Parts: sequence; structure tokens; C-alpha cells
Amino acid sequence: MEKIYQGKTKDVYKLENGNVLLKFKDDCTGKDGVFDPGENSVGLTIEGIGKANLETSIKFFEILKEAGIKTHYVSADVDNATMEVLPATVFGHGLEVICRLKATGSFIRRYGDYIADGTVLEGGYVETTFKDDAKGDPLVTKDGLIALGVMSGEMYDSMKEQTLKITRIVADELAKKGLDLYDIKFEFGYNNNEVILIDEIASGNMRVYKDGKIVEPVELTKIILG
Amino acid sequence: MEKIYQGKTKDVYKLENGNVLLKFKDDCTGKDGVFDPGENSVGLTIEGIGKANLETSIKFFEILKEAGIKTHYVSADVDNATMEVLPATVFGHGLEVICRLKATGSFIRRYGDYIADGTVLEGGYVETTFKDDAKGDPLVTKDGLIALGVMSGEMYDSMKEQTLKITRIVADELAKKGLDLYDIKFEFGYNNNEVILIDEIASGNMRVYKDGKIVEPVELTKIILG
Repeated sequence: MEKIYQGKTKDVYKLENGNVLLKFKDDCTGKDGVFDPGENSVGLTIEGIGKANLETSIKFFEILKEAGIKTHYVSADVDNATMEVLPATVFGHGLEVICRLKATGSFIRRYGDYIADGTVLEGGYVETTFKDDAKGDPLVTKDGLIALGVMSGEMYDSMKEQTLKITRIVADELAKKGLDLYDIKFEFGYNNNEVILIDEIASGNMRVYKDGKIVEPVELTKIILG
Repeated sequence: MEKIYQGKTKDVYKLENGNVLLKFKDDCTGKDGVFDPGENSVGLTIEGIGKANLETSIKFFEILKEAGIKTHYVSADVDNATMEVLPATVFGHGLEVICRLKATGSFIRRYGDYIADGTVLEGGYVETTFKDDAKGDPLVTKDGLIALGVMSGEMYDSMKEQTLKITRIVADELAKKGLDLYDIKFEFGYNNNEVILIDEIASGNMRVYKDGKIVEPVELTKIILG
């Protein structure tokens, strides 16, 4: 298999059937040996975290499939920590799509004069940021994405609509375990003009609370898979 | 007359007819004695700049009136450096609406990996930032303004449409003097549900080039009024 990309937490291979294979690694983003999904460089290795993230992703991708939402997910091989996915092109040099159900984190750092930490954002609020460590992952608007030639307005609308639906499904699933989803980040890609969810849906991509206290990613994975 | 607000460059009085009087001052925003419209604190006083900004504003507000665009402008008294305007409420704690015809400045600082400095933004690109010195005037999207309860989607659409029209009119006027408008910032307000342009349209609100070189605000005012 030809390795076409070496990522921080996953390697990417090209399959002969035209699909792509993601190999989940045990490397985590973090700083000073502490796991932090918000960090941009690999900070530590946690044995088994690759498989755990894969299993979490499978769980959510299967739920989305049942709900009739097409994603890049095709199948998975947990023993080998691999997931077969549809090929897709990322937007620009990488774009994160964040859906916020409750205001916290960078939203409060930006808009804290207008809203209190923890306030419900009725119906969910969607925003996009460029993956750009040096520039601090800058926020970019729908009009900005169009002006920069990153995507069409129709693609943005489809992405936003899917984001709201998927977030609602993930939040409902977490609620069954007494978990409260505050926000979640996704990555989308496109194949021809079709926009689909790509990458993973794992604990490191979401901010979740239980009984008013934040649940750290490793603990969250245990609860989700338990 | 009752002074209802003391601004950095203007004082605001309440008139008996229900309108509002803006008194243009000679105080300028800047740093270390150098005029800089982008600065947030008063840095120096330039004799006559209040009247010059008022005259520039009158010129543009009159052109907009002729073009059938309603603004807060009612009349002016240049000798006393005052402008009578319709009352309007600002959005949130102050919102700046920027229209960019060519990519430069903070747009390049944020998105320089996607676009070259000076690139034409076809049709104009509109964005909004909160006036918030401590937070570095954060960008806020249409959805963000709605989520924060600052304005409705309809108000945003009206504001964006007016911004594009007004920017085109100002750019065309400047082009008559060989000037090239790169970007311009506005402030809008609302009275009931009607969104109208408020504040001023002066040299400090726009970035203008002539023969490929930026024209400083004091020089720009001379050219516009000359």
C-alpha cells in the first residue's frame, strides 16, 4: 500500500479499490507529556488510544449511517486499527467546523462581553476556523470561504446543515450516558461537489460535561465504549 | 443641550426635536503623537481635523442621499463642526462593518496563506468585528451575531446589502480623483427594525491608494475636499 500522508495521529494509505485506509496511531497531540486535543503537535504516546479512537469513531459513524447521513466511513478493522474510507479532498489547507451547543472556550474568550460561560446556544451555532498553528487557527466566515475560493456558498450550506444534524445525533447518544455535549469539531471534505464528513469522531474532538464537570478525553472514551 | 455621550473624536447631544447632534472634535486616535485611525485611544489633536472630517462626511452622505440610500444624516453646520442626525441604537457595545475590495491588512494577517496582498475581492467582501480593544476587535459571523442576540438575520442581510452599495458609491467617487479604495469601515445602527448607516464617512475610515502607494488620512481628506 502506498502511504499518501503521514499525519500527527493517523497515517493515510491508498487502496487499490480507489478508497483510502486510515491507520490510527497511539500518538496524541499534547504538551509536556499531557494529552490535549487542542494542541497542534504530538506530545505523547498512549498505548491503545488509536484503537479506542477508532472504536469510538465506528460507533458514531454507524449511528450516522443508520440515520441516513452519508460520511466517508466504509468499514473498519479494529485489530489492525484501520478504517477504510471514501476518498475526499480537504478544504483549503484544512478547515475545522465547530458546532457549539453551549458557549464556552474560545467562544467566551472572543465574545465573553455578550454571553455568559455555559449559556445554551439555541439550536446550535456553527463556525469554521482554518487549521493554521502560526495564525492561531483564525475564524473564517462563509463569505470569507467563498472570497478565498475555498468553497461555494452551496457547499457551506450543506456542511452547516450536516454539522447541525450530526451534532444533534452525537449529543443525543451522549445524553443516554448522562453526558452533556458542549461543543464538537469536525472535518469535512468533498468528492466532486458532494460534501461529506471525514476524519474521526472521537473524544478528543468534543467537549463534554457530566454532572457539571468536564470529562477528560481518556475517561470520556471509556464511558462512550463502556 | 444634554450631552448624552462623550466619544473619542465626537461628543453627542440630544436635540429637542428628537434628533441627535454630533460635535466633531479635533482629537484623533493615534499613538505616540502619530495619527492612526486604527488605534483605539486619543493620541493627539490636529487643529481643524474635526471640521475636515465633517466636510468629508457631508460630501459622502449627500451623495448617498442622492442615490436614494437613507442614512442617519439630516443636516450639518460646518462652522460649528456639528451634524444633526436621526437617533439610532448601536449594535451590541459597538460593531464595525468592514467592506474589502482588495485583500490587505488584517485580512492578509489572517488568511495570507490563501490569498496575495492586493488581490481584488470580486464584488466586495463584508465582515463584522466587535469594538473590543482588550480582545483585539474579534471577528464575528452573521450566525454569531444572531446567537449572541445582537441582531436578526434580516438585519444582517440589510446591513450587508447597504454596505456593498455604499462602498461601491464611495469607491466610484474616489476613482474620479484617481484614488483606489482598498477597504472601508462603517458603523450601522437601528431605529425600530430599520438598519441605517450612522457615524461618519471620513478618511480615517478607509484605506486608499494612489498610483500604488497608500494615501495617509490627512492627505486623503485634502484630495477628497480639493
